[in-house]
Amino acid sequence: MILTGSEITRRVQSGEIVISPFREENVNPNSYNFTLSSTLRVYEEGEIDVRKEKETKTIEIGEGGYVLQPRRLYLASTTEIIGSHHFVPSYAARSSVARLGMFINLSAPFGDIGFVGNWTLQLLAINQIRVYAGMTVGQMMFWKVRGEIELYNGKYQGAKGPIASQIFKDFAVLQHER
Amino acid sequence: MILTGSEITRRVQSGEIVISPFREENVNPNSYNFTLSSTLRVYEEGEIDVRKEKETKTIEIGEGGYVLQPRRLYLASTTEIIGSHHFVPSYAARSSVARLGMFINLSAPFGDIGFVGNWTLQLLAINQIRVYAGMTVGQMMFWKVRGEIELYNGKYQGAKGPIASQIFKDFAVLQHER
Amino acid sequence: MILTGSEITRRVQSGEIVISPFREENVNPNSYNFTLSSTLRVYEEGEIDVRKEKETKTIEIGEGGYVLQPRRLYLASTTEIIGSHHFVPSYAARSSVARLGMFINLSAPFGDIGFVGNWTLQLLAINQIRVYAGMTVGQMMFWKVRGEIELYNGKYQGAKGPIASQIFKDFAVLQHER
Repeated sequence: MILTGSEITRRVQSGEIVISPFREENVNPNSYNFTLSSTLRVYEEGEIDVRKEKETKTIEIGEGGYVLQPRRLYLASTTEIIGSHHFVPSYAARSSVARLGMFINLSAPFGDIGFVGNWTLQLLAINQIRVYAGMTVGQMMFWKVRGEIELYNGKYQGAKGPIASQIFKDFAVLQHER
Repeated sequence: MILTGSEITRRVQSGEIVISPFREENVNPNSYNFTLSSTLRVYEEGEIDVRKEKETKTIEIGEGGYVLQPRRLYLASTTEIIGSHHFVPSYAARSSVARLGMFINLSAPFGDIGFVGNWTLQLLAINQIRVYAGMTVGQMMFWKVRGEIELYNGKYQGAKGPIASQIFKDFAVLQHER
Repeated sequence: MILTGSEITRRVQSGEIVISPFREENVNPNSYNFTLSSTLRVYEEGEIDVRKEKETKTIEIGEGGYVLQPRRLYLASTTEIIGSHHFVPSYAARSSVARLGMFINLSAPFGDIGFVGNWTLQLLAINQIRVYAGMTVGQMMFWKVRGEIELYNGKYQGAKGPIASQIFKDFAVLQHER
């Protein structure tokens, strides 16, 4: 079961869901509109080997906004701290954003129960699109669970701002196990 | 909880879900196959500023189909009117379509409870793909909700055909609020 | 309702969910990490007509991995056999994979209740990414259903390895019906 907007509001008030800051006007019928923070992160040119760490550089979105170049990946983040120890969160682009030709995640819409922090978004534009910090780009949804809950305790816990992939760390473990 | 195909059929019969026209043979184990209408809409070249309205032009898919060019965004729509005042709808590409190298939405699979209309799809092809009006391109799913329902009453309500992004309208409001 | 990780484990033990091979360490708070098999499949160059079968060729990922070229579609598959007669499966890229600039499906995350086999993934990289067979690329989730269950009995049932789109077969049927 997916929570309705009024149920999301109720659970934020009871503390079972964290959305901070929380604004009533961002509540939709079955989701909550979150906003784009001002920091973007991009990988340096060249091949990325999943086993090796790859450098990134930072871009700040100024007052006049920032034009995303087509077919380039920008890691971004939510302004809000979002998460829950009781419900599984998932998120999507607002349809108004998708209709412009922009992804906000690359087939990775789900979070882990227990994660609380800024969410790292993957912005990918098909067209040249000028975006602004603070604009509502996506919607967070919350799902009831069945079964015993073990909270997330992974490497992205408590994230602040956009966090590049830490997959190289996992890979070391995987290799060791094989 | 996600509705099974037989439950979708039952709820269409009871009027709790709208799928019109509805064809029995389009019911899957846990979704309903919808079809592509004949009208496409594309943005004019150049930068899109989320704060400004952007012109679009219309393309009609003829009898011989239409070849989607790679990495170009085409707004399309379902032939069917789809929605519900009781369940949250979400949709996906048929796996047979995705395997050809085609998205039908850009990280934006969810609708709002209360929306009823044609759904605007975002077609994005990786390969050159010839599509036809009336082909089944995607699958609609329906989710039970938890909490009090407030129905969608937004700017895409009752949509007919593909509707370009109305995000510039929101932005004016956001700006005012800040 | 979405199953928690411990519930997924319990249902695998009871046989209600198939994940084979199953490794405890791949269980997440609300999903299961699956791995990439060594075979990729790509379409030959040129237009794809949804009404016609399109040839593919096979690529094997060697010991040193394989570099995915940007904006090219690679069909891949899970190493694991995955499915359920009781729950609806859906899958996503690991966030660590999406953050590198890689999709593992093109707006098609859902399976049908009753499908059991290797899952065909759609790999699409924004950057040049070196991947390895056996790496954990995605996460499978399981959803409770509402309504009577009719099991999937379609053309991808029991799939082994990556299966190219069989949409041309459907189309013949659709045409006939019209």
